[in-house]
Amino acid sequence: RNSKLPNIPTSIFSVMSKMAADYDAINLSQGFPNFPTDPALGALVDQAMEEGFNQYAPMAGDFELRMEISKKIEKLHKHFYNPETEITITAGATQAIFTVIAATISKGDEVIIFTPAYDCYAPTIALFGGKVVPIQLKPPYYKVDWQEVADKVTSATKMIVINSPHNPSGMLFSEDDMLQLQHLAEVNDLFVLSDEVYEHIIFDGNIHQSASKFENLANRSFVTASFGKTFHNTGWKIGYCVAPAPLMKEFQKVHQFLVFSVNHPFQKAFATYLKDDSHYLKLSDFYQQKRDFFLNLMKESSFKIIPSKGTYFQMLDFSEISNESDIVFAERLTKQHRIATIPTSVFNKAEKDFKQIRICFAKTDDTLAEAAKILNEF
Amino acid sequence: RNSKLPNIPTSIFSVMSKMAADYDAINLSQGFPNFPTDPALGALVDQAMEEGFNQYAPMAGDFELRMEISKKIEKLHKHFYNPETEITITAGATQAIFTVIAATISKGDEVIIFTPAYDCYAPTIALFGGKVVPIQLKPPYYKVDWQEVADKVTSATKMIVINSPHNPSGMLFSEDDMLQLQHLAEVNDLFVLSDEVYEHIIFDGNIHQSASKFENLANRSFVTASFGKTFHNTGWKIGYCVAPAPLMKEFQKVHQFLVFSVNHPFQKAFATYLKDDSHYLKLSDFYQQKRDFFLNLMKESSFKIIPSKGTYFQMLDFSEISNESDIVFAERLTKQHRIATIPTSVFNKAEKDFKQIRICFAKTDDTLAEAAKILNEF
Ligand SMILES: CSCCC(=O)C(=O)O
Ligand SMILES: CSCCC(=O)C(=O)O
Repeated sequence: RNSKLPNIPTSIFSVMSKMAADYDAINLSQGFPNFPTDPALGALVDQAMEEGFNQYAPMAGDFELRMEISKKIEKLHKHFYNPETEITITAGATQAIFTVIAATISKGDEVIIFTPAYDCYAPTIALFGGKVVPIQLKPPYYKVDWQEVADKVTSATKMIVINSPHNPSGMLFSEDDMLQLQHLAEVNDLFVLSDEVYEHIIFDGNIHQSASKFENLANRSFVTASFGKTFHNTGWKIGYCVAPAPLMKEFQKVHQFLVFSVNHPFQKAFATYLKDDSHYLKLSDFYQQKRDFFLNLMKESSFKIIPSKGTYFQMLDFSEISNESDIVFAERLTKQHRIATIPTSVFNKAEKDFKQIRICFAKTDDTLAEAAKILNEF
Repeated sequence: RNSKLPNIPTSIFSVMSKMAADYDAINLSQGFPNFPTDPALGALVDQAMEEGFNQYAPMAGDFELRMEISKKIEKLHKHFYNPETEITITAGATQAIFTVIAATISKGDEVIIFTPAYDCYAPTIALFGGKVVPIQLKPPYYKVDWQEVADKVTSATKMIVINSPHNPSGMLFSEDDMLQLQHLAEVNDLFVLSDEVYEHIIFDGNIHQSASKFENLANRSFVTASFGKTFHNTGWKIGYCVAPAPLMKEFQKVHQFLVFSVNHPFQKAFATYLKDDSHYLKLSDFYQQKRDFFLNLMKESSFKIIPSKGTYFQMLDFSEISNESDIVFAERLTKQHRIATIPTSVFNKAEKDFKQIRICFAKTDDTLAEAAKILNEF
């Protein structure tokens, strides 16, 4: 039997985390914190198990949690999502993204993505017969040229995928970006998939421009989000999707047969934990300190660095250090210098020769200092 | 925008559990226990969280857990699955089933399923452009006629989906069934998806005939399984898939972009818990007692009952009670008699007029006694 999916490689995150482990390297590749999640959250999980929330959660998710999410979004972005019909809890943001694409994309549909792009979008679009239309953003600023986007829209375009704060570049969409997107999506009747997993990690006084904030964007958008990224527990795999009721109805048609429902005790724990908004409102400061701590140590380095504006990632330009491809350079860094990073060409579609690697600074100061020391040797 | 999926209804389990709640009915519909999971398991989850297993698990799952699964299957079915390459932990068996279909089925492929069939198979096959070829099994024995199956195989047939112990009927595949399946699959070079979530719930001294047990079946089969069904925690949503390495490679190509990895602390807990095989070997006796307790109370009832041979479900034939469709009858039972069941015609494709409802007996003896009292009034 031939493979249905001959061209799908192993995710770069698996590859690099394995290489990090094999070579005992500091792992700044895959995006996850190396410090503990709040023990209070663990205690809430424990309580939920003891209280007996061990059987199927409702298909859309625990209702209390959906209410808290609705309140949070209303407070932050002044948009009301009905917890009955417009919110679904997922097994992480990846499952939410997959489900959006499964529920909307059919053979021949075109989907615009901005590259470098998180690695799950393109293969998932292709799995459902969609055609990926990549728009290459260029270092160091990764600015979108909305005229270029408009030029790429055809009668087959069904959806635009955005991701702000942007992984891997740390770029943010401005209010103007969002207004231009809104206009384009309205005029061409497009869906928008807005991957906002780093919504609470925004630096230098910038503001998160959620798709939920813009009335005529919100009414055609699926917004996906992650608790793992916000609460330092990427291994708990809980996220969610919000969308207007007619879109959410389509989402749930797939969700119910893809996973049915997700881990109940964790949902209960997050429902309680979300009530205290300091648990996420302080996150930007926390990570800005980490970014600045790291950048300060890298002041004299040969890497060219434009500070990340959001996410817990930082791009490092090695063009003054080496002419190697980013894949070769990242492999050498891991194997010889014992520091694992992500070569970013794997996120690009067209242009492959940017000299950029990505590091994750969701690490203890000790780890960041050790990493900076190694990187400064170049 | 038109819906991509106009014909997908809400899962019967959501519908009936909601109706049960709305009418304050005893909920024997959706399959889950109403008694607690082992507190020792909760303590292991707690320990895993404290030990810091809160970030991404490996994509294929926690290695220790994969090793325990490998050992378990080798002990029970004398087949070795390599934990490195042949086992993936999933967010419940539903995600495993979805992923198998996503990784194998393309437009035009035919997939044979036996109806009544669990409700996620057909819509998932259709989502990937496959054609569902249903073979109707008939009450009371739901026996497969393998000649009929052979007659339905065409050059487009790609996979056969089996489910033994069978939900909803409680039927088991015999060794002979498996040998006939093996022959058919070999001759026609078919994949097999063997949904074995009730593998540890088998009555009257019968033996579970896993697809893993038959060498030439195992080498073309994806076997899916569930911890939730076995350890009384359907809300934890952990299951797994085993398959020979080349098939598992295809599975993981989708899995990595569908969910990436699954809940880490719960995986760790199961890794430890599985080491004591009494935790699952005693399950058949436990549920046989429940079945017999219930059947004994129903001895004088007007429902015609053939004892279930496996799963925690029991079919009740109401043909001597009412001429209503099973949907109307089940709705009346819920709203007027305050007992929710599953009308089984939703699992059928062709034949819709069997007078059969399904009850779940994974309930405390009190609940079963209360239910039997109501049902005996008919
Ligand atoms: C799902 S593993 C990848 C984690 C992540 O978001 C990243 O490293 O970009
Ligand atoms: C995923 S909800 C359905 C549970 C179940 O397996 C059943 O009731 O048949």
